[in-house]
Amino acid sequence: MNKIKLGMIGGGTGAFIGDAHRRASRICNDYELLGGVFDVDYEKGKEFAKLEGIDLNRCYASIDEFIGGELALPEKDRIQVVTIVTPNYLHYEFAKKLIKNKFNVICEKPVTTSVEEAEDLNRLVEEYKVVFCLTHTYTGYPMVRQMRELIKQGILGKIQRIDAQYYQGWINSIIHGKDSRITGVWRLEPKYAGASSCMGDIGIHAFNLIEYTTGLKVEKLLADLNNVKKDIVLDLDGTVLLRFKENLRGVIRASQVAGGEENNLSIAVYGSNASLKWEQENPNYLYLLSDDKPIQIYKPAHAFNSGFAEISHVMPSGHPEGIYEAYGNIYKGTAKAIRGEEYFDGEFPTISDGVRGMKFIEGVVKSNKEGNTWVDL
Amino acid sequence: MNKIKLGMIGGGTGAFIGDAHRRASRICNDYELLGGVFDVDYEKGKEFAKLEGIDLNRCYASIDEFIGGELALPEKDRIQVVTIVTPNYLHYEFAKKLIKNKFNVICEKPVTTSVEEAEDLNRLVEEYKVVFCLTHTYTGYPMVRQMRELIKQGILGKIQRIDAQYYQGWINSIIHGKDSRITGVWRLEPKYAGASSCMGDIGIHAFNLIEYTTGLKVEKLLADLNNVKKDIVLDLDGTVLLRFKENLRGVIRASQVAGGEENNLSIAVYGSNASLKWEQENPNYLYLLSDDKPIQIYKPAHAFNSGFAEISHVMPSGHPEGIYEAYGNIYKGTAKAIRGEEYFDGEFPTISDGVRGMKFIEGVVKSNKEGNTWVDL
Amino acid sequence: MNKIKLGMIGGGTGAFIGDAHRRASRICNDYELLGGVFDVDYEKGKEFAKLEGIDLNRCYASIDEFIGGELALPEKDRIQVVTIVTPNYLHYEFAKKLIKNKFNVICEKPVTTSVEEAEDLNRLVEEYKVVFCLTHTYTGYPMVRQMRELIKQGILGKIQRIDAQYYQGWINSIIHGKDSRITGVWRLEPKYAGASSCMGDIGIHAFNLIEYTTGLKVEKLLADLNNVKKDIVLDLDGTVLLRFKENLRGVIRASQVAGGEENNLSIAVYGSNASLKWEQENPNYLYLLSDDKPIQIYKPAHAFNSGFAEISHVMPSGHPEGIYEAYGNIYKGTAKAIRGEEYFDGEFPTISDGVRGMKFIEGVVKSNKEGNTWVDL
Amino acid sequence: MNKIKLGMIGGGTGAFIGDAHRRASRICNDYELLGGVFDVDYEKGKEFAKLEGIDLNRCYASIDEFIGGELALPEKDRIQVVTIVTPNYLHYEFAKKLIKNKFNVICEKPVTTSVEEAEDLNRLVEEYKVVFCLTHTYTGYPMVRQMRELIKQGILGKIQRIDAQYYQGWINSIIHGKDSRITGVWRLEPKYAGASSCMGDIGIHAFNLIEYTTGLKVEKLLADLNNVKKDIVLDLDGTVLLRFKENLRGVIRASQVAGGEENNLSIAVYGSNASLKWEQENPNYLYLLSDDKPIQIYKPAHAFNSGFAEISHVMPSGHPEGIYEAYGNIYKGTAKAIRGEEYFDGEFPTISDGVRGMKFIEGVVKSNKEGNTWVDL
Repeated sequence: MNKIKLGMIGGGTGAFIGDAHRRASRICNDYELLGGVFDVDYEKGKEFAKLEGIDLNRCYASIDEFIGGELALPEKDRIQVVTIVTPNYLHYEFAKKLIKNKFNVICEKPVTTSVEEAEDLNRLVEEYKVVFCLTHTYTGYPMVRQMRELIKQGILGKIQRIDAQYYQGWINSIIHGKDSRITGVWRLEPKYAGASSCMGDIGIHAFNLIEYTTGLKVEKLLADLNNVKKDIVLDLDGTVLLRFKENLRGVIRASQVAGGEENNLSIAVYGSNASLKWEQENPNYLYLLSDDKPIQIYKPAHAFNSGFAEISHVMPSGHPEGIYEAYGNIYKGTAKAIRGEEYFDGEFPTISDGVRGMKFIEGVVKSNKEGNTWVDL
Repeated sequence: MNKIKLGMIGGGTGAFIGDAHRRASRICNDYELLGGVFDVDYEKGKEFAKLEGIDLNRCYASIDEFIGGELALPEKDRIQVVTIVTPNYLHYEFAKKLIKNKFNVICEKPVTTSVEEAEDLNRLVEEYKVVFCLTHTYTGYPMVRQMRELIKQGILGKIQRIDAQYYQGWINSIIHGKDSRITGVWRLEPKYAGASSCMGDIGIHAFNLIEYTTGLKVEKLLADLNNVKKDIVLDLDGTVLLRFKENLRGVIRASQVAGGEENNLSIAVYGSNASLKWEQENPNYLYLLSDDKPIQIYKPAHAFNSGFAEISHVMPSGHPEGIYEAYGNIYKGTAKAIRGEEYFDGEFPTISDGVRGMKFIEGVVKSNKEGNTWVDL
Repeated sequence: MNKIKLGMIGGGTGAFIGDAHRRASRICNDYELLGGVFDVDYEKGKEFAKLEGIDLNRCYASIDEFIGGELALPEKDRIQVVTIVTPNYLHYEFAKKLIKNKFNVICEKPVTTSVEEAEDLNRLVEEYKVVFCLTHTYTGYPMVRQMRELIKQGILGKIQRIDAQYYQGWINSIIHGKDSRITGVWRLEPKYAGASSCMGDIGIHAFNLIEYTTGLKVEKLLADLNNVKKDIVLDLDGTVLLRFKENLRGVIRASQVAGGEENNLSIAVYGSNASLKWEQENPNYLYLLSDDKPIQIYKPAHAFNSGFAEISHVMPSGHPEGIYEAYGNIYKGTAKAIRGEEYFDGEFPTISDGVRGMKFIEGVVKSNKEGNTWVDL
Repeated sequence: MNKIKLGMIGGGTGAFIGDAHRRASRICNDYELLGGVFDVDYEKGKEFAKLEGIDLNRCYASIDEFIGGELALPEKDRIQVVTIVTPNYLHYEFAKKLIKNKFNVICEKPVTTSVEEAEDLNRLVEEYKVVFCLTHTYTGYPMVRQMRELIKQGILGKIQRIDAQYYQGWINSIIHGKDSRITGVWRLEPKYAGASSCMGDIGIHAFNLIEYTTGLKVEKLLADLNNVKKDIVLDLDGTVLLRFKENLRGVIRASQVAGGEENNLSIAVYGSNASLKWEQENPNYLYLLSDDKPIQIYKPAHAFNSGFAEISHVMPSGHPEGIYEAYGNIYKGTAKAIRGEEYFDGEFPTISDGVRGMKFIEGVVKSNKEGNTWVDL
C-alpha cells in the first residue's frame, strides 16, 4: 500500500514531541515523512532534514513556502497531511493556513490558545472537508478504548460519579531549584503556554478522557487553582468540580507539584451497577468493580474485548505495548480517515475535542478568577 | 497487671460495632468487660450479658442505673472506662453524664450531632480530667502512624497538596434495590445520622486522617454534595475543596455510591521534596515518592521505622495485621492514658478530634446549602 | 455461652508464639486461659501467670503436675484443651501424655520430630477420641478457604501444575552478621529444630497449603537443599520437585536467605480451564485466571463467596483482617469440635496434617542426602 | 545519518514475528528494509514486497539468489545486515551462508537446533568478523538492563539463590480443544521446533535472563519435564534445578499449560545484602528488597539509573514503553556495532548467548530422559 505523504511543522533537532510523532508514524507504518518546516532557524531545519534523510528541496523556511512548494508539485507527489508540533501559540495560524489549502492536519494539544480560535478551526475543517486529528494520545491505549466501549454497552448502569486525576511532580525541581529556571520554562509563561499551565497542559487530558470514555459532556465547572509560589503567574495545581446533566457530578484533580509523581493520569467512572478504573502508568489493566461479582481485570489481546480495543494492540496477550503504540494507534486511525477507509468512532480525536478542551481551559481560568464560582461550558 | 474495668453502652446482640470494640479490648488484653447497658430493651440486654458471661448485677437498664450502680461499688471494683456505641444522636447525653461522674469514655465517631455539643464535651473532659478516646480507627494502623512521624520529621519539604478519598459502593444496592430499604437505613435519616450521611460517616475519616498525619488544620472549605436521588434527603456523595494556611490546598472526595468500591480510604500528601501515599485496603504499605530516588515502600516491623509505628505492630515483618489490630492499638493507647503511663502523641484520638470532625460536618453542609461557597472552619 | 477452659504448655514471658495463640483464643472469644506450665523455670512461669491474672494454683511446675492437678478438679472446672507451644522436640512427649489423659490438644507445627512419633499421636487421637488441632495458621485465611472451595467445585478443570513458594530473608542477618549468632538460633540446631531448618520451618507450610487447597496428595518428591555456608548443618534454602497421581507435577521453593523477603508464602494451582493464585502478604486477594475471561479477584465479605470463606471474616468488605484473625478462625473451628458442634471440613488442621508434614520433611531430607533422587511419600 | 541497509529472510505476510522485527527496526530508526526472501512461495513474497513498497528487484526467490544479487551490487548499495525469522530449523543453514558472505545477521531464538550448529556459527562469526545479534528481546527492557548494572555494582552482596519463571497458558485451548489442532501447531512438532517445546520456546528466555542479569553461568542442571498428555511428544511444562559455582543454586520453572497466564516471565536474584525482582508484564518496575531499608522500586527515565538503562528509554518518566521498544533497543545496539560505534556491554545478545541457550535445551532434554539426573552444561 502506498504510504501517506507526511509533512511536519516544528519538531526538529531536540524537540521531544516531534520525535514522538515521527515514531508513531513509523510504528503504524502508514506514513513517510517527506518534508516540512522543522525549525524557526532555517539552517538548523536543514541540518535536521539531512539527519533524517529528507530531500532538502522539501525542507522549507516557512509555512508559506511549504504551502507554495507543495502545491507546486503534482497532486500525487504532494504532502497529504501535516503534523503541527510547534509551541501552542502557533498552532492556530499554521493550522488555518494548511486547512485552507486542503492539507489534512495532525495537531498537538492544546489545539489553540482560545475557544474562538478552536471554533474557527472547527468551521474550517468542515468547510474544507479535511481530516483533523488532535493527538490526545491517551485515547490510543487499547484499554481506554475498551473502557469507552464497555460504557457504551451500558455495563455501568446509571453513571453516578466521575473522578479523574493527573499528577506530576517535575516542576518541583524547577520552582524550588537553586538556580531558578522559571524564566526558561515556556510552560510557565502565558505568552507561550496560554492561560494555564497545569490545567492547560495536563488537566485537559483528564477532561478529555472523561468525555471520551463516557460520551458525556461537562456542563458546568467550578475551579480552585493554585500558583503555589508568588512569583509564578500560572496555575501549577488545582481541583475542578464538574457537573453533567441529570445531577451527575465529578471532579478533576491535577498538579505539577505532586512531588515524586511521574505521569499519574487516572480515571474512574462509577455507576449504579459497576465501575471502571484505569491508570496511565499501567495502561494494560482495566478494572471493573461490581458489588456482586469479583473484581474483573481486562487486558489487551483477548477475544472477549471489543473490536475497537482489539485493533489497538498487536502483540499476543501479556506482551506490554506502551505509549508509542498508543500514539501509533491514533496515527493509524487518522491514516484510515485520510484514505477514506472505515474506522471506529473514536479512533482519533478531532477538532471537536479541541473545542471542548479550549472551553475547559477558559472555563477553569474564569471560575478561578471569579472566586471559584460555577461557569457554564 | 490488673485489667482495666470496662463498661459498654449499646453494642448488644447483633451490633456490629460493639463487637469490634470488644474484640479490640481483648486483642490488646488491657481490659475486662464487666458491665453496661447493652440494649434499649433491658431483657435483650440481659440475654446478651448472659452470652458474654457478664454478671447480671452489672447489666443495667439505663445510663442512670449504670452510674448509680457503679458508684455504689468500692472504687477498686468500679468500672473505669465506658465505651459508647449507641446511634450517633445519643452519644452526647451519655458521654456528658459519664464524664460528670468521672468515668473515662471511649466513644464512636461522629462524637456528637453538633459542634456545640462536641465543644461542651471538650470543656467537660478538661474540667473532670477524664480520658476521652474517639475511635477514629484508621489512626491505629502502624503505617498511618509512620506517615505522621515521617511528616513530623520534615521529610516531605513544604507540603503543597493534600488529597484524601473515601469511596464505598454499598448504598447502591439499597437505593437502587427492588425493595427500597431506604427507610430502614438509619444512616439515611437525619434524625439518627445527623446532618450528613456520606460526609458524616466516611468523609469525616478522610478529614481526620489529613489533620492526623500532617498536623495541619483545615481553615476553609467549599463543598459540593450530591444526594443522588430525589427521595433521599442526605448526601451520598461529594467533593470538598480545602484550604490550609500559607496557600496550601487540598481536596476530600467521598462517596457511598461508587459502585463496587469496598472501603477505599486513601490519603496522599505531596511535598516539595517528596510525597507519602497510603491506602486503607492495603494498610501495611506506605509509599514514599521522591523525584530523585526510587520509590520507597515502608512496611511494619522494621528497625528503620519510627518507634510509634513499631509499637503498633506485633508480628514479625510480612505477617499482615489488620483493622482489628488497629482498633486494638487505640484501645492500648487509651489504657496507657487511664493508667497514667507514658504514651505517644497521637496514640488515640481525643475529644479535640471530635470537635474538629463536627466542624467539618457543619462546614460541609453549610457550604453546600449556601451554593458551594467558602466556609471558615 | 460458657467459655472453653484452656491451658498452655510453654509460651510464657517473651515467647512470641505463645502470645499469638493467646490472642487467637481471645479474638474468637470461645476460650478462657485458666492454667498451664508456662516456663521450664517455675518461678518465671509464676511471674507470667501473675501478669496474665491466672490463678497461681493452676500454674504448674511440670506436665505431670498439670495433669495431676487438673484431673483432681471436678470435670466441670477442669481445663478442656491444652495448647503446646514448646520447642518442637518436646511436642511429642507432652501431646502423648495429654491425649492419654483425655485432654484435647492444640499444637504448633511441626507436630513432632519424626513420622513415627506423628503416627503414634495419630493413633492415640483416634483411640482416646480427643480433638487435635495443628496450627497451620495460613489455612485460617478466608481466601485460602475460598481457594479450597473453588477447587472442590472443579472450577479449574484438570489440575496440571502446582507451584508454591515460601521465601524469607531473616537468617541473612544472622549468618552473615559480624557476631555470628548461629549457635544461639535454635532453628539452626538439629537437636531442637529437627532434621531441617528451611523445609521444616517454612517449606512445610507450602506443602500443607498445597494439600489443603487441592485435596491432592504428594506421592513422590525430589529435593535439592542448600545449607549455604559450610559451618551450617541444616538447610536454609531448597527446591523440591513434586509428583502427584496422573502425571501431575509441582514444585515447592523455599528459602530463609532470600534477602529482603519478609514472609512471602504463595501458592498457584494451574488447571486446564483456569488457575488460582494467592499470596500470604496480601491475604485478602485471590486471583482467578482464565484464558477466556478477564482476571477475577475474590475478596472476603461477599455473598458470592463460599460459606466456609464467609464464616472466616467478620468485618464488612474492604476492612482487612490479618493473620491474628486467621489464627482465631482455627481456634474457632477447634472450639466447635470440642463442643461437638458442626464445622466445615478443613476448619482446623488435624493430626493427619501433622503426619503428612513429617513425611514431607523426612522425604525431603532423604532425597537430598541420597543425591537428589525420587522418594515416595 | 545514513540508514543501515536491512534485508529479511522469512517474515512475509501473516508472519507475526517478522512484523515485530520490522517495527523494531523502524522504532529505532537506524534501518531501512530494502530486500529479502520473504516467503518460501516466491509469488507471495513478491506480493508482500509490493505491500511494503520494496523494490521487486531485491525481492529474491531463495537465499542463494539473495546473496548473489546483493553481492552483485556496489558495496555502498548492498544490504548490510539480514534478519532471519524463518522457522527454527532453517536458521543454521541461512545464517551460515550469510556469514560466509560477510553479511551481518540478526537471528530469532533459538539460534539453531543443536549445540553443534550453534558452536559452528560462533566460529564463523569470529572468522568472518560479522555482527551477530540474537533477539532475546527481554534483554532490551530498560529495567532488565538496570538490574544487570546493579548486580554488576555488587549491590546484592553474595548471590545465594536465583529463581526464574516463565508461565503461559495458551496451549491449553489447543490441547484441550474440541478440534484438536495439535498437528497444526509447529511448536509441538520436533521436526520444526527442535527437541523441546516449553523449554525451547520459553524456558530458554528465563535461562538467558539469569545469565544476562547476573553474569553467572549455569554449570549443572536437573530437569523434570512434563508432556502433560499422552499424544504429545514434546514438553509443555517443567522445572529445572540449577547449580552455579560456589554452591549457588537456582531454579527455572516454565509452563505452557498454566491456564490463564499470559506471558508471565519473571526473575528474582537473591543476595546476602539485598535482592532484585522483575516481571515482564510490568516491565517498568524493578524491585530492590533489603532487610534494613524500605523496598525500593526503580523505574525508567531517572538520573539515578545506570547509563545503560537510561539510553534504553526515550519518553519522560511515567510514560510506559513496552516490548516493541525493547526490541527496538536491541536493534539500536546492533546498529551501533555495525557502524563501529561504541556500545554498552550487553546492548544486544550475541551468538555466545545462542550457544548457551542450545546447551540449556540439550541439557534439559538429556537430564529428563535420563531420569532427572544432573547434567553438566
